[in-house]
Amino acid sequence: MPALTTHDSSGVRGSSSAGQQSNLAERVQAGEARALARVISMVENGDSRVRSVLKELRPPSTGARVIGLTGAPGAGKSTVTSALVTAFRARDIRTAVLAVDPTSPFSGGALLGDRVRMQDHATDPGVFIRSMGSRGQLGGLAAATPQAVRVLEAAGYPVILVETVGVGQAEVEIASAADTTVVLVVPGMGDSIQAAKAGVLEVADVLVVNKADRPDTQATVRDLRSMVALATADWKPPIVTTVATSGAGVDELVGQLDRHWSWLESSGERDRRRLARARDEVIALVFGMVRERLAVPDELAARVADGQLDVHEAAAELLTTIGL
Amino acid sequence: MPALTTHDSSGVRGSSSAGQQSNLAERVQAGEARALARVISMVENGDSRVRSVLKELRPPSTGARVIGLTGAPGAGKSTVTSALVTAFRARDIRTAVLAVDPTSPFSGGALLGDRVRMQDHATDPGVFIRSMGSRGQLGGLAAATPQAVRVLEAAGYPVILVETVGVGQAEVEIASAADTTVVLVVPGMGDSIQAAKAGVLEVADVLVVNKADRPDTQATVRDLRSMVALATADWKPPIVTTVATSGAGVDELVGQLDRHWSWLESSGERDRRRLARARDEVIALVFGMVRERLAVPDELAARVADGQLDVHEAAAELLTTIGL
Repeated sequence: MPALTTHDSSGVRGSSSAGQQSNLAERVQAGEARALARVISMVENGDSRVRSVLKELRPPSTGARVIGLTGAPGAGKSTVTSALVTAFRARDIRTAVLAVDPTSPFSGGALLGDRVRMQDHATDPGVFIRSMGSRGQLGGLAAATPQAVRVLEAAGYPVILVETVGVGQAEVEIASAADTTVVLVVPGMGDSIQAAKAGVLEVADVLVVNKADRPDTQATVRDLRSMVALATADWKPPIVTTVATSGAGVDELVGQLDRHWSWLESSGERDRRRLARARDEVIALVFGMVRERLAVPDELAARVADGQLDVHEAAAELLTTIGL
Repeated sequence: MPALTTHDSSGVRGSSSAGQQSNLAERVQAGEARALARVISMVENGDSRVRSVLKELRPPSTGARVIGLTGAPGAGKSTVTSALVTAFRARDIRTAVLAVDPTSPFSGGALLGDRVRMQDHATDPGVFIRSMGSRGQLGGLAAATPQAVRVLEAAGYPVILVETVGVGQAEVEIASAADTTVVLVVPGMGDSIQAAKAGVLEVADVLVVNKADRPDTQATVRDLRSMVALATADWKPPIVTTVATSGAGVDELVGQLDRHWSWLESSGERDRRRLARARDEVIALVFGMVRERLAVPDELAARVADGQLDVHEAAAELLTTIGL
């Protein structure tokens, strides 16, 4: 009789689960795209077996350079990301793209099908592109994204672009978990500038006014410049205008990204950010663990819904029941 | 010598803090706008004194009808909200508007200054308009928004419109904590439809294609219709086209909102939603409480950042230190 074997969608098979994970880690570090995709799926699905893989993956001592991109829908994130991939590839730097969509439970093919620009790189073995939705990770995408980045880092990509869809709080958190955060706006989108003003601008290391062939470009640049002038931090975010579809301005953008990278290293800010990020990652995971243990009894929820019980008292009561 | 008195920005004064809170609750239930604004500020600031006020506020037995509106920047949320206020006021229904901005630490005047449309209602005593940013609430806006809604309910507003800025996960969560959730899209915004397809559509009770005088309207409606056709839930979200600036389609929107309200009552769904909401509110608050007790030691974060310690082990270690 043949030995029992386990099968999965990626075609990996083996009779020992531990051996299989070990094998996966080796294959990721050897730069095998299929193994890499599989481990990121494990991260995405909250598959607990990913832990043993992550443990075995040792990041290269230099560490990858992680660039986050965020901005309102229609700002051209995919196009700018694709232009950056082209620019890094022209320098012969292997590049990974992680497109994170906090609003979507879907990932992989579904979303990437819409990312027409990315298809320019589909046949380049030096480029790895992957999208990730939110489905059941412990701690949500705030915990899953840094894990996926760590996997890409261990796979030896010196540059990792993390693009987030959406303009809300969750998206900003994800994009700002990078070494350099790029915020995209387009001319004349009042609401987009408004969002940039409010929360998004605070996390921007580089500001990009994309679609800069539109009429309101100069007004938008002036608007952003007056906001940046108020910043008190050591690093003043430069404002770059681009027309990513034609490639205009992309060289300047890459130059500003390099300048920011040098500043991160020389100022010690890079280490500070990595520490803050590790802290956030631990907290997100703790929340996920608390959430798993937390079942709100129907009776408690009903008393809150009816206004019989104050929500603070309900929360305190629940904390007691889980031993806090 | 005069007795010691306490002062605050709202001009409330008294020698007893408990008496002061009690007074505030009474004033809210008497429908005093200034007291109402003050209590919502307390919710927004995470002021612990709000707890005693919330405890004393007893919601009317009927409960308010809470309508959430969300959509991409530029979809015309403020204009549609304002048109709905006009429609409810024409029926002589007192109406409250809560504009929630998860991306912004700012609130009140700053944001409302941009909401030009809302100024149509500034002199109407039957309308209460308030914006709320995220600053320091325990449990974030996911916990603060239902608290603010409860305050408005206790103040006797039969209709409460909750508008959220942004299109991310946090925004969807906030808007969907309503009895009826309205999702706005505009014709031809590819990314906006994409967002609607993915996560936002799942929470929509009514879909609005605003700015329906634009060329791509019919294509957008068809697109949405084919998505709605796939829905398996009892309630199929109707698709309403509006030009909110001119008022076109607003009557039909109000009709669909009424129809959904009747369905909520007759199907028992309203109670189910209120229970689920109470549950979410308790959980958000528990998270806030856990967060307060949670300090990630520098040494632990450094080991995670350096890749010496697996983040899952770090999280487990931390949970142990806080007694879980």
